[in-house]
Amino acid sequence: MRLHSYFRSSASYRVRIALALKGLPYEYAAVHLLKDGGQQLQPQFRQLSPDALVPVLEDGGQALTQSLAIIEYLEETHPEPALLPATPVERARVRALALGIACDIHPLNNLRVLKYLKKPLGIEQEGRDEWYRHWVQSGLAALERALADSPHTGLCCHGDTPTLADLCLVPQVYNARRLKSDLSAMPTVVRVADYCASLPAFEAAHPDRQPDAE
Amino acid sequence: MRLHSYFRSSASYRVRIALALKGLPYEYAAVHLLKDGGQQLQPQFRQLSPDALVPVLEDGGQALTQSLAIIEYLEETHPEPALLPATPVERARVRALALGIACDIHPLNNLRVLKYLKKPLGIEQEGRDEWYRHWVQSGLAALERALADSPHTGLCCHGDTPTLADLCLVPQVYNARRLKSDLSAMPTVVRVADYCASLPAFEAAHPDRQPDAE
Repeated sequence: MRLHSYFRSSASYRVRIALALKGLPYEYAAVHLLKDGGQQLQPQFRQLSPDALVPVLEDGGQALTQSLAIIEYLEETHPEPALLPATPVERARVRALALGIACDIHPLNNLRVLKYLKKPLGIEQEGRDEWYRHWVQSGLAALERALADSPHTGLCCHGDTPTLADLCLVPQVYNARRLKSDLSAMPTVVRVADYCASLPAFEAAHPDRQPDAE
Repeated sequence: MRLHSYFRSSASYRVRIALALKGLPYEYAAVHLLKDGGQQLQPQFRQLSPDALVPVLEDGGQALTQSLAIIEYLEETHPEPALLPATPVERARVRALALGIACDIHPLNNLRVLKYLKKPLGIEQEGRDEWYRHWVQSGLAALERALADSPHTGLCCHGDTPTLADLCLVPQVYNARRLKSDLSAMPTVVRVADYCASLPAFEAAHPDRQPDAE
């Protein structure tokens, strides 16, 4: 397998964690989102990813896109260790936690959106930082309620072993801290994210440990 | 089953199509996103949905959130007719098409984001409309490439029967037209969306056909 990844991309980070948890070796293909006007926009990469986004996982001649679709694919083709619980209701909970991050926080804060706020909208750095923190904090506050109120929450978002939800949570918290978001009102989010981040597979997937880390 | 829905919510529309395709009866609970300062923000609704978003599906005493998690749950508990293809690679393609809409287009254009652009950012109506069209058109242009370039595309996004991808596509195209986006460069997107929208289950799920339609 070959993973097209950018070290700081949250979505790439999620897939790196899944590959590490499942013990799957892969070749790392760096795609620099800032160099050369954005390497993801070059025709060669667009052949793999029509939406010009990382990550892309190449496996058996297929180019797979969208981090959550890639992780579901890995779950189906390499079921152990499972990243989704056994029952439909529990699986729905885990997927909802993951989508709460992947749909309702991350897309508002990725690079192309922050760029658009700068130009053409002319929002200054301070306004852009405030935008970032607004969506991260309201999104993570919702997640805090979902985690704190549920008997299913354990060391991880669902029970005591990592699921798809943790694969989304850890990169989002990493990003939130990098942009100095205030997480003091989210003790469960922080506890779970810190626990998961300490596990070897999460450590191996950390941005600082990637070949293209700066 | 009881579905908490707003007639114009894209995410609710997706779940209504899934329920109709699978022939599952349900009670319709209207949540008006604009009345009473947003009924989704009221404490009673927040008990069901920590992130204060529609849709919520209540089934067997459980409140399920996030449209794609709900649809995966319906797929697991009521497998016929299937909304995902049979092989992992094909399932990955369908999920990626769905997520391309659910993560990369829709979250940038929902009501709370447009509100934030207005206040505190002070972006005028014209700038907000331009924001809307920018993300819809760049997102649907990527989808056009993904559909036009693949031998898997049929009458629907994947083959000739509706999948999760079509459940996301039809509401997004409905929205795009409502805000007068130019879709002339996306003939495959338009062809597939119009074909699916003509099917009885999609018609039954249309915003205009809901009890809370205005």
